[in-house]
Amino acid sequence: MSTVFWSEVLGTGMLTLLGVGVVANHLLGKTKGNGGGWLLINFGWGLAVFAGVYVAWQSGAHLNPAVTVGIWASGGEEYAPGVAVSLASTLVYLAAELLGAFLGAVLCWIAYKQHYDEQLDPAAKLGTFATGPEIRSYPWNVVTEAIATFVLVFVILMFGGTPSGLGPMAVALLVVGIGASLGGPTGYAINPARDLGPRIAHAVLPIRGKGGSDWGYAWVPVVGPILGALIAGGIFQLFPATNFPA
Amino acid sequence: MSTVFWSEVLGTGMLTLLGVGVVANHLLGKTKGNGGGWLLINFGWGLAVFAGVYVAWQSGAHLNPAVTVGIWASGGEEYAPGVAVSLASTLVYLAAELLGAFLGAVLCWIAYKQHYDEQLDPAAKLGTFATGPEIRSYPWNVVTEAIATFVLVFVILMFGGTPSGLGPMAVALLVVGIGASLGGPTGYAINPARDLGPRIAHAVLPIRGKGGSDWGYAWVPVVGPILGALIAGGIFQLFPATNFPA
Amino acid sequence: MSTVFWSEVLGTGMLTLLGVGVVANHLLGKTKGNGGGWLLINFGWGLAVFAGVYVAWQSGAHLNPAVTVGIWASGGEEYAPGVAVSLASTLVYLAAELLGAFLGAVLCWIAYKQHYDEQLDPAAKLGTFATGPEIRSYPWNVVTEAIATFVLVFVILMFGGTPSGLGPMAVALLVVGIGASLGGPTGYAINPARDLGPRIAHAVLPIRGKGGSDWGYAWVPVVGPILGALIAGGIFQLFPATNFPA
Amino acid sequence: MSTVFWSEVLGTGMLTLLGVGVVANHLLGKTKGNGGGWLLINFGWGLAVFAGVYVAWQSGAHLNPAVTVGIWASGGEEYAPGVAVSLASTLVYLAAELLGAFLGAVLCWIAYKQHYDEQLDPAAKLGTFATGPEIRSYPWNVVTEAIATFVLVFVILMFGGTPSGLGPMAVALLVVGIGASLGGPTGYAINPARDLGPRIAHAVLPIRGKGGSDWGYAWVPVVGPILGALIAGGIFQLFPATNFPA
Repeated sequence: MSTVFWSEVLGTGMLTLLGVGVVANHLLGKTKGNGGGWLLINFGWGLAVFAGVYVAWQSGAHLNPAVTVGIWASGGEEYAPGVAVSLASTLVYLAAELLGAFLGAVLCWIAYKQHYDEQLDPAAKLGTFATGPEIRSYPWNVVTEAIATFVLVFVILMFGGTPSGLGPMAVALLVVGIGASLGGPTGYAINPARDLGPRIAHAVLPIRGKGGSDWGYAWVPVVGPILGALIAGGIFQLFPATNFPA
Repeated sequence: MSTVFWSEVLGTGMLTLLGVGVVANHLLGKTKGNGGGWLLINFGWGLAVFAGVYVAWQSGAHLNPAVTVGIWASGGEEYAPGVAVSLASTLVYLAAELLGAFLGAVLCWIAYKQHYDEQLDPAAKLGTFATGPEIRSYPWNVVTEAIATFVLVFVILMFGGTPSGLGPMAVALLVVGIGASLGGPTGYAINPARDLGPRIAHAVLPIRGKGGSDWGYAWVPVVGPILGALIAGGIFQLFPATNFPA
Repeated sequence: MSTVFWSEVLGTGMLTLLGVGVVANHLLGKTKGNGGGWLLINFGWGLAVFAGVYVAWQSGAHLNPAVTVGIWASGGEEYAPGVAVSLASTLVYLAAELLGAFLGAVLCWIAYKQHYDEQLDPAAKLGTFATGPEIRSYPWNVVTEAIATFVLVFVILMFGGTPSGLGPMAVALLVVGIGASLGGPTGYAINPARDLGPRIAHAVLPIRGKGGSDWGYAWVPVVGPILGALIAGGIFQLFPATNFPA
Repeated sequence: MSTVFWSEVLGTGMLTLLGVGVVANHLLGKTKGNGGGWLLINFGWGLAVFAGVYVAWQSGAHLNPAVTVGIWASGGEEYAPGVAVSLASTLVYLAAELLGAFLGAVLCWIAYKQHYDEQLDPAAKLGTFATGPEIRSYPWNVVTEAIATFVLVFVILMFGGTPSGLGPMAVALLVVGIGASLGGPTGYAINPARDLGPRIAHAVLPIRGKGGSDWGYAWVPVVGPILGALIAGGIFQLFPATNFPA
């Protein structure tokens, strides 16, 4: 389990290092990618997943509590080759994902240290770490996150039906697509660790001129994705169209 | 056939959930991807196909009546492994594609509910659901849709000649390319279900401040794509350059 | 040879239908992709190659006299499996490529007919069909086209050294990259047929309000690419680093 | 070793020809891609790596002293099949990478010759050749380059854990992602040869109206990437999650 733990820590750390990075590049002042746009952010996050999946190959590269929960809800028996689904293994995944997501965000803050110092708007600083809705309404924001995460987990569960040589590129492209299509209202956390880990980093790091960490919203990108993952796992079990050959 | 039906419903639903989503992200007010541009839309729709193909693997992932008709017109004997071409199976595909396209659009409306409410322009609301021409002229609009769909179906029919490990990425990239190159005049429906299903959703959903559903245009993205698919199937049968080794 | 001929006609026609299309989408008035930008054009042309390669699988998918000449100059013995390099086969490739490029441009004009009519600037109309330099200087323009085509042909010749499952995506991405990097001065014809075929189409089609076809420049995107292809073939033969295992 | 040498020269030359090219397209006046944006630059550099890797297949396609050093630091025994890690082979790689990077930049200057002449701003000219920080601070700039190169080398070292058919596309996408996410502060040299070779070219070429070559900064994109590569190699050896099956 120690291999699983460190694999997820390193992979999820890679994920938020690059993911927080692309938003920092877009939002912070004086960066070369300043105002680079939504498609830049979509590719940045998608390729952050791409890099993270390579890093976490030994643990099946969940990088995301919604994926872990979705595998469980789909009736899967293994989280990765040789790693059985159990309460203990589930907790190892969740803890590693959260720790990795926190550490990656810390590293990204170091990489962009001077640009965080230059940016005067506290909202932009927070926006690089954690997601936030464009129109605040907790119920609707939960719904949007649940739908987007349903897409993520359900399509990942279906990957097995269509063999390809895409490797980690399949999930990377899926994340690019989800961001382009369903990221508009809430910024597509679709991953409780991706949001909570960096939010904690924002809260504890000595970021010059930072504001609050918007803890009132913090439960939305946890509950929404978990809901979406449970629905994905349930539909996967119910519908005949999802049955893989035995 | 029930597996085929639900497979196409789920896959085409995934297609329009993500496809309608990227246009909503671009067109509706206060979204994070507002004004994201044509390449964003092209990638969004292409990756919507990507996700839908994974979901509908058991039915060969047509997701599009033009693909179903094109396979029939090319002289194909199976719609998917073990699914013979017949009138009954054709009707199952068409019905499932239309139902799925309708349901995906409904789900997308829920994901973007608040942004639909914020957007005051009825044309923008309709523009997220259904296609419309930039210069209205039914004959020329039919021609453009027929040419773009010919490209889609003809290249899909040729996929078999060049083995690769791209899996669902091949058709996703093809759709990105068709959108970039031939989507300019009419918005590349290239799929009767993709246009008609969401248009019906627009008509029946209680969308705040919506206008008409432009039923006068609705036949164009049905007839144009079917025409293009028939031509693609015919050329596939006629030209020696398309013959695969026996 | 008739299979080779029609294969190249169909494939190169697909290439210019989509390639001319993305420039039309960017340049002509009232299109949905108007002003879509350089990266849109790069992806449009790259994916035009992608589609064309699938279509022309029986003839090895040259789609480009520079590729045909480059294979000859590299000392290759076959243009495609079973198609020997000879004067006769070379002429079949060149004729088919030119004819296909012409026909694809005609079809694209039909797809964008109303937008050509709306566009008042004759230079924009020509710009969709044929390439032109930003700073006119025949010697330097030839040099730029020769360097860019050298990259295209040399890397294609090296494809065999690194097996992958990318199929037609490898050359598609290569063309995206050449456009992004070396297309700035002359618009990267890198293919005599791609420029000459559509230029002839521009000259003979009854395009409303068109201007001249800039025949003074027409030799540059023929001579530059052929030069680049010859250099690529020569270096391929000279350098030990390019030798494939026997 | 002569094969290794010329393989790296040609491959790294391809890298900087295309990489310097995309920045020239973005920064120099009157180009077709002028002001094309950060995502264009990211794709241009990523696909420059893509093309370079195909060219340098015989030497394992390092193209980058940080990759060479990273393989050494990870405890690897071969730089490429049949090429043992030794002081001599290391020096051959480093020399070839630097020479290739220089030659590629020279060739790019020729391809964009007239646009360099048109551009009046010396900083823009230098910016096409070499990287520079947006906020100058040598220690922080070293840190950013070290982190970004750590990502590059560490993920490359992990590629072996997840088989795919992506071939050179894996590293190309990785470089697109690093640029999008971590290129904001310093322009992501992440490769000492990529920066130093073109900087020398800028210094020695007779570029009209050029300014200084900013030699004060030149050590940063050498030291930062080497540091990052050493850390990547070290973590690869220390963490159990990175151990490949024996």
